[in-house]
Formats: sequence, C-alpha cells, structure tokens
Amino acid sequence: MPLSPEQQAEVDDLRATPRPTLRAVSEGMERHLYVAHDVLDHGFVRVIDYMGDDAAICQAARVSYGKGTKSVQNDEGLIRYLMRHWHSTPFEMCEIKLHVKLPVFVARQWIRHRTANVNEYSARYSILDREFYIPQAEHLAAQSVVNNQGRGEALTGEEAERVLRYLKDDAGRAYDHYEEMISDEGQQGLARELARMNLPANIYTQWYWKVDLHNLFHFLRLRADAHAQYEIRVYADAMCKVVADWVPAAYAAFEDYRLGGAVLSASGVDCLKRMLKGEQVTQETSGMSKGEWREFEGLLG
Amino acid sequence: MPLSPEQQAEVDDLRATPRPTLRAVSEGMERHLYVAHDVLDHGFVRVIDYMGDDAAICQAARVSYGKGTKSVQNDEGLIRYLMRHWHSTPFEMCEIKLHVKLPVFVARQWIRHRTANVNEYSARYSILDREFYIPQAEHLAAQSVVNNQGRGEALTGEEAERVLRYLKDDAGRAYDHYEEMISDEGQQGLARELARMNLPANIYTQWYWKVDLHNLFHFLRLRADAHAQYEIRVYADAMCKVVADWVPAAYAAFEDYRLGGAVLSASGVDCLKRMLKGEQVTQETSGMSKGEWREFEGLLG
Amino acid sequence: MPLSPEQQAEVDDLRATPRPTLRAVSEGMERHLYVAHDVLDHGFVRVIDYMGDDAAICQAARVSYGKGTKSVQNDEGLIRYLMRHWHSTPFEMCEIKLHVKLPVFVARQWIRHRTANVNEYSARYSILDREFYIPQAEHLAAQSVVNNQGRGEALTGEEAERVLRYLKDDAGRAYDHYEEMISDEGQQGLARELARMNLPANIYTQWYWKVDLHNLFHFLRLRADAHAQYEIRVYADAMCKVVADWVPAAYAAFEDYRLGGAVLSASGVDCLKRMLKGEQVTQETSGMSKGEWREFEGLLG
Amino acid sequence: MPLSPEQQAEVDDLRATPRPTLRAVSEGMERHLYVAHDVLDHGFVRVIDYMGDDAAICQAARVSYGKGTKSVQNDEGLIRYLMRHWHSTPFEMCEIKLHVKLPVFVARQWIRHRTANVNEYSARYSILDREFYIPQAEHLAAQSVVNNQGRGEALTGEEAERVLRYLKDDAGRAYDHYEEMISDEGQQGLARELARMNLPANIYTQWYWKVDLHNLFHFLRLRADAHAQYEIRVYADAMCKVVADWVPAAYAAFEDYRLGGAVLSASGVDCLKRMLKGEQVTQETSGMSKGEWREFEGLLG
Repeated sequence: MPLSPEQQAEVDDLRATPRPTLRAVSEGMERHLYVAHDVLDHGFVRVIDYMGDDAAICQAARVSYGKGTKSVQNDEGLIRYLMRHWHSTPFEMCEIKLHVKLPVFVARQWIRHRTANVNEYSARYSILDREFYIPQAEHLAAQSVVNNQGRGEALTGEEAERVLRYLKDDAGRAYDHYEEMISDEGQQGLARELARMNLPANIYTQWYWKVDLHNLFHFLRLRADAHAQYEIRVYADAMCKVVADWVPAAYAAFEDYRLGGAVLSASGVDCLKRMLKGEQVTQETSGMSKGEWREFEGLLG
Repeated sequence: MPLSPEQQAEVDDLRATPRPTLRAVSEGMERHLYVAHDVLDHGFVRVIDYMGDDAAICQAARVSYGKGTKSVQNDEGLIRYLMRHWHSTPFEMCEIKLHVKLPVFVARQWIRHRTANVNEYSARYSILDREFYIPQAEHLAAQSVVNNQGRGEALTGEEAERVLRYLKDDAGRAYDHYEEMISDEGQQGLARELARMNLPANIYTQWYWKVDLHNLFHFLRLRADAHAQYEIRVYADAMCKVVADWVPAAYAAFEDYRLGGAVLSASGVDCLKRMLKGEQVTQETSGMSKGEWREFEGLLG
Repeated sequence: MPLSPEQQAEVDDLRATPRPTLRAVSEGMERHLYVAHDVLDHGFVRVIDYMGDDAAICQAARVSYGKGTKSVQNDEGLIRYLMRHWHSTPFEMCEIKLHVKLPVFVARQWIRHRTANVNEYSARYSILDREFYIPQAEHLAAQSVVNNQGRGEALTGEEAERVLRYLKDDAGRAYDHYEEMISDEGQQGLARELARMNLPANIYTQWYWKVDLHNLFHFLRLRADAHAQYEIRVYADAMCKVVADWVPAAYAAFEDYRLGGAVLSASGVDCLKRMLKGEQVTQETSGMSKGEWREFEGLLG
Repeated sequence: MPLSPEQQAEVDDLRATPRPTLRAVSEGMERHLYVAHDVLDHGFVRVIDYMGDDAAICQAARVSYGKGTKSVQNDEGLIRYLMRHWHSTPFEMCEIKLHVKLPVFVARQWIRHRTANVNEYSARYSILDREFYIPQAEHLAAQSVVNNQGRGEALTGEEAERVLRYLKDDAGRAYDHYEEMISDEGQQGLARELARMNLPANIYTQWYWKVDLHNLFHFLRLRADAHAQYEIRVYADAMCKVVADWVPAAYAAFEDYRLGGAVLSASGVDCLKRMLKGEQVTQETSGMSKGEWREFEGLLG
C-alpha cells in the first residue's frame, strides 16, 4: 500500500471537490486525477494535472496545416495522419503532470529523457523513508547469455534466496547506519547531503514529472518496449493505461504506428520486394548482417 | 477588431459552457479564457488553456525541497524565496497555451525563444489574409543616433506621410499580385508555398504557443524590457496582465526580482561599497568602461 | 557567385593556415572548412567548425554501453547497430557549425527545428543587402491538385513570365523604398527595425547555425525528403554531401535506416505477413484507410 | 591516482600526435586535452574535445548584431558587452566535451542540468568498479542548524570515526555481495541491471558530457557557488580553471558579471538609493523580509 492513510484522505478530499472550468476537459482523465496506481512493491504513478484532449490536438493541427487538414473528415483520421507523417507539434499541445514514486536506479534511467520538467524529493534537505525495492522471486532474472544484455531465466533455489537476503539485509543495515549518522541525539549529526551516500540504489525516491504528449509517447515507445528493463517497463505500462483514457484517439494511433509498428532499413525494403516477387531470400543474399537479419525475421515471423 | 463575428460567436459559445474538473483552477485566469486581447492594429493574444496556479508552484517546491521549505510560513513567502534563489523548476510546473496573431517580423523575433511549443498557420498549405501591420504615426520612430540601435524621436510631416504611403501601397500591391499568382481561374495557379515569398514582413500570421511559466518569465523579462522593440513589447505587456491574474504571487515576485531588479557586476558591487563608505566614485576610478558606468549610474539615478 | 571577392580572399586566407591540434580530425571535413557551397541563386552553406568524427561516436558508445558494445567487431558495425536501435546519444557527441545564407521564407521553416544554436544577421541593427531569391522557370511549380499540398507541374508561357515579373518588380520596388525610408540624407531616417517590415520573404538573410549530429540527421530526414519544399531541400542536399565526407560510416547508416528506410504500422506489418503467405490483400481487406494504403503500396511498388 | 597505467599511456599517446587543422584553435585548451584533473579521491575531469575560442564568440556576435557590434573596439570589450546584456547566443557557439568520473550522488545533481549531451557508463551492461567516495575527515560536516540546509562544522572524534567506518564497511560489503550475485561460477548469476541496485550512492560512475559555453556558465554559476554541495563544487572549480584557459576573455567577463556579481530586487535598488542619500535603512524600514535583508546586508558587508 504505497499511500499512507493521511495521503489517501488527502486524495479523497481532492477528488470530492470538483470546480467549474472553461478549459478542455477529458472525462476519461478526470477519473484518474490524484489516484495512485500501484507499481512495484512501494511505488506508484498518479496524475496531478493535465492540459488538453484529442480535440486540442486537432485544433492545433488545423491552425497549423489549415485547409490541408480540413479534407480529413474527422478527428480520428486527422490524428492518425499526423502520427503517420511525424507531425509532432500538435501532440506537443497536450501536457501531463505526474507524481511518481520509484526506486533510484529506475529514476536514473528515467531522467535521461531530458525534455520534461522535474521536481524531485531532495535528500539534501530532507530525510528519505525506509523503503526499498525488493524484487519478487519471479523477477530475479539471470544475466542473459545470448547478447550480454538484459535478462535470462529467473534464478531459483538457494541462489535466489541468497540474493533476496543480501538485498534486504544490506538495505536494512545501510538505512540503520544512515539514521544513526544523521541523528542529533548526543552528537552533532552528519549532514543529510552526506549521509545519503550510504543508501543503495533500490531506495525509493519521488518526483513531480511534467511532459508534453509527444515527448511522453517517445518515452513510452522506448520504455514500454520488450527490451526495456522490467522495473521501468511497469511504470511505462501504467502510464499507457492512463494515456489511453486521456486521449483515446491519439493513443490508438500511437499503438498502431509506434508500439506495434516497425522500422525497415533500405536493405529491408529491398528484401521484402524480392520476397513478395517469390524470391527465397536468406541472410547470405540479403545484404544484412546476422544481427539485422535476425531482427528482420523476427518482425515477419 | 481582430476577431470576425463568427470567431466572436465561437468564443462566446466556449465561455458559456463551464464543465466540472478536479484540477487546480485559477479563478483569475478563467476570466481570460478564449478572450482576445487586442494588440497593434490587427493582432491579439488569447489564452486557450492553462495548467496550475500559485499553489501548484508551492506544491512542487515542497516535494522537491521538503522540510527546508516548510519553514517558510506561507505560499507567497515561499514563492519569493524560490524566485530570489533562482530555483526555477517549481515555476516550470505551470503551463500556458496562447493563440497569438502577430506580424511576421515580430514572429521572427519571438521564435528565437526555443523552449516553447508552436503550431503556426502554414502559408504552404493555406492562403494568408490581407492584413498588414501599419504603424500609428507616433510609432514611426527614427533610427537612434545615440548607439546605432533602437529608436529615436518619431518622424513628422512629409517624411512620415511618405513612409506610411510606401508601407500601405507596397503591401497592397504585393497582396494583389499574391492573389493573382495563386488564382486558378483561367490558369494553373502558382503553388502557395512559392507565392508567399512575395509578401512583406508586416503581414499577419498566427500561432498556438505553449510555454511553461519559468520560460514565459524569461521571455517577458527580455521582451517587456524598455530595450525591446515596441511591436513585440506590446505583446509582452498584454501577457504580463494575463499572468498577473493567473498566478498573482509568482507575478509579484517576478516584478520585484526580475522586471524591477538589477544585476550588478563584481566591479559594481565594489563601487557601491566604496560609495556607501562615503567615497566619491567616478567613471575613472570605478574600473568600469564608459558604457558600463552609464548603465550603473542609470540604475542608481 | 554568392561570396564577394573580399569574402573569398578571407576564405583563402583561413584555408592557407593550418595549425596543430590534439583533437579528433576528420580529413574529409577539413576539405570543406570555410568553402561556400552554392545553393539557389544567392545562397550558400559553408562549414565554419566541427567537433568529432566516426570514431568519436564509437568512443562515446563504448563508454556508455561498455562490454555490450565491444562484441561488435568494428566501428562501422557498431554505428549501424546504434542507428538501428535508436541509440541517439553517441551521435550527439559530434557537432557542426555552419554559416548559411538563405531566403527568409526558408529560414522560417528551418528555425522550427529548435534543438540548435543560432546567430542570425539582425535587420534591427544592420541594413539588409539587395538580394532576393527569384526561382528558375522550371521551379515555378503550380499548386498540386492531388492533395492540396505541395507542387504540381511547372508553369509555362505568359503565366510563368508574369510571376517572374511580379517577383522581380515587387522585390526591387520594396527595396528601393526600404533604402529611401532608412536614408538619413535630408531627413531623419526611419528606424531599421521598422523599415525592414516592407521587405518580402524572398530576401536573403544569413546565420550561424550549430547543431549536433543526431539533431542534424533528424533535420535532414525531414528536409531532404521528397515532400519537403524544393527551396529547403536543396540546402538539405548540400548538407548531406558535407556530412557524408565528415562521418562516412554514420552517414551510410543514416542513408540505409532513415533516408531509404520505411516505417510500417501494426496494420502494415500484419498485411505483409499475409502477403508473404500468398494472400491477395487489397485496401478493402487491409484494414487501412485509402491514404495509408496508397502509401503502403508506394513503399513496396 | 584515478587513471590506470594503461589509461595514462593512452593519454600520453593521444597527446604525442598533433595533427593539422584549419579550425579555430585555443592554445590554452590544447594543453588540457585528455589530461585528467583529479577531483575527490577517485574522480577526475578531462577535456576530450572542444569547439571555438574567444574569437568565435565575437565572430558569431558580429554576424548577429552587425554594425551595432562593430562600434565596440575590441573582442574583450564586445564579450563584456554581450555578457552584461544577457546576449547568450554567441556563447552557445562554443562547445566542450568532457570525460568525468564522479560519485553517483554527485551525478544525480549534475544531470538535473538538461541542456547537455550525456553518455554514461551503463551498469546495465557492464560491471562497475570497486571505487567509492570516502570523504576526508575535514569534509565530514554536521547538518547546519542555521537554516536546516547545507553543512555546519566538521564532525570530530568518535562520531567522525564511526561515520567513516560505516561508509567504508557498508560500501565494501555491498560490493562483495554485488560481485557474488553477478558471478556465474557455479550458479546462473544475477542480471547486472538488477545486481547494481545493491550499490550505494558513493560508488563512482563516469560519463562523457558535452555542453555549450552558455549552458556551462549557467552550470558553473550554480555549482561553483558557496551554497553548492562541496562534492559537486570541486568539480565546478576544476572546470572553471579549464575554461579560464580555453576562453580567457569570456571567463573573465563571467567572473565579473556572474560569479562575483549580484542580483538586486526592486526593493533592494530602492534601499540602495535611500542609503546613498544618507538615510539609515534597517530591515524594518526596508520593506524586505528578514531572509532577504540578511542576504542584502551580506552583499554589501
């Protein structure tokens, strides 16, 4: 249960008091406001604010492309057209602000996306809570032996037990020492900005993260992908559900053209043409490297 | 009157139908939504959407700086503290979306601010309207003779008349030819993307412009400044009024620390200390160049 | 001839004086430094400075991906891998600074790419030259009747002649009046920042434009594309040649995966699989709209 | 000694082979190329590449501001003028690429500056080294009691000893367990992307970091400031020395106007005017809060 009773009461309060606005309203998104969607063992994603809806994307596109876009008969068709032709600016006209609680090693990946606004809880000024991400047994994956990246099968038996014991014990001990170091009872107390260096990367942090829809889609394409680390993918998955309720037409186009789509190289296009004419193309005759060919086959498999 | 009757009816419609939301609402801003604030002879600024209010700035700051910020007793004090210490990220948590109609030469200055989202009316796909900025006589300034930049006194008499005649006649003729070139009556008709090249820089364009509050303040500090060109400054002034109603505490801090404040060099600080001790400091003994000294004197004059 | 004799002498001077450096050097790029590549009737692109080469991309990737990238045997293979998997940060480690002279209506499209640094010639402080883009007859395209966007066949006969006459005469007259208005002989002289508003969008401006390789590739993908306006595409084409000499391996990967590649939707992938199994797929059975199907057929045609 | 003998040999190699270039060369910067400047106990900053020099800043400014800038007689005066008037784009025309080794908790602060390019060593794909930041005794500061932020006096005696023991022991044990978990001897071996979560925030990471001079100055103003955390300030100090050798005129202007300068509010300017007229101004009569007044007095003290 990631929210404390006080926090839950605050959420309930906020949700109990609708106010009139003249702005665009997304009914689907209003249902999500302030509600914490649980992720991992202590994390969450919750929507704090949003701007715009599917109609706002079309409105901006029609200002921009004028008559050219009026020939597209409805909003859904226009949004698909924009997505297909990489017209990204209309999607930038929607904005979302999230409150996210997440382990530090996930936060470090996340922050690599620079086109967003962030306010993170500061361990320089404040004391971190005793909350650590401890994976469930089925997520204790072995190092992949295929490509030296990513994960293989889940660990089992004693190996798995030992890993969990290390993670729990080391986190607990590090936090005990953190508390002892910053305590000002009977001593001066180490500066928080220094004491935090003893804490491991599975401790939870939190932040407000604000991003426009175009850049959010870019984030989701990379992080909801099967190659993304499981611990960030679950956050992306939770956000995908929220976005599908917020801007249903834009999300459907995103799913079709980005999440479910594929990028072909010039060599790939050439091979396809030959295959459609009946030629048997192999890696040797494809002009592709082994890695490329494996990915190409995976796409059509 | 920059809005057509149809456009005004649309605005009235939008303003007639409030809907409930659970988001933060700024009462002051709701009054501005969709309303066109006239700027120059055919331009306007109008708010299409916004996210956040003064409280949202504080909420983000408190997540970020935690206990350190709770010692500041109220929101206004906290906002002043953030502005004074250049803590910009909490201000980034507010966002505004504007619809602006403006002459092309103003748009060219404006777009130099890169940290914003833009959808501009496309003269590649659509036909521009016959609307040109023609300055009022009192704004027909002469080239400044002081520093080779900016404006001097207003032109008068025949010189002023001739300028106005040139601006009007050349714009009218260019637009006549634009229309003739793109016409498909009895001819093929030149592509719009080419015909537009005949139009002068005082023709009006329009765009949706979305920006966060921190970057908007940066824009306003530079463009509401006395050294900014008059034709962009009037847009900045119109926006200042809107922002003052949207986030009153943040705007007041911005006025005190940025618009009305001053930046001193190390030499300037040194001179001040000497002056406060009673020394008579002159340009020669100040260690400053003539230009710097003139600006320093202007600040304290 | 876009460069004046003085400018050419300056270029010759700069090219005559190599100096030793310990930085990465791209031999192919050194040949381009300062040389103006003519574009359109008065425009040019020239390289003023650059940072990095193909090896610098790999060096950054190896810091970042460590052991995972060492399994890729050579630089070329690694660069193709990075491009294929959208690992963009290593390409950001190269930077280029260009001096570009271009018509204002092209500059207005160009500047929509925000992730670059720009210093443009200021018509607020300086006097623009009497140089206008006048298209060659074969580029006087008619408005396309197919999709209301872009260009059709070239205009001919009297229609073409009239267009050229309008463009030339209007530009000449506007410039005459510009000169008269700013003149301080026997009058005050209008401020330059105002007089410029009389000048049409085919007048030339110039700027220094600095961008990293990742963002340059993004620019080139959109602007060297067949759907881009001819007048900006010729600049993109000129830059493509420069980049091919600067970072040959990265450019080859860009050509294969971006310029010559294709993006398929989930529906497109599904159709392909069915076609490869021998099914006859038509627009009606494809699940695609007419526009999508036309593009899909074009890809495989 | 942060560099291994192999790394030092590589640096020596790179420094032994100058090559001719036609680009702008900064003699002062060439001396720094590849050399590791030690920071903290295992960290360093070293310059990998750079673009531009003081002259390049002026060259860009003169394109941009044209005649207006030619009245400034020399490069140094022009650079001071640009810095004083916040003309930031010419400074963006210089670029630097650094290789930095730094503790993770410092990296987390650093990365909050978004306008830079980064390639960080990936603990997802590679194995981190057993290197941890352990502060020197005199930097083991107590939590400040003045404002609940930052540091007070250094800890002493047993308290200091215990802190050092905790930091060393916990880091060592966490790393032992990290190694055990990822080992594939007699077991599957935990995925690196998971095992890293056990490592504390004082472990060292490294990255390539590329930034333009304007944004670097912004970073240095905040991080070379007395209020910045000591562990990031020492990196900023090391970079300041490098920049002073790279672009001496720009750095001198930065020191005078930013590092050594001061920002006054409108209230502050008003107080100063009154004080210069001989009035005795106190906090009560100043219109400032206690915090503001304390800072104002500190400035003039």
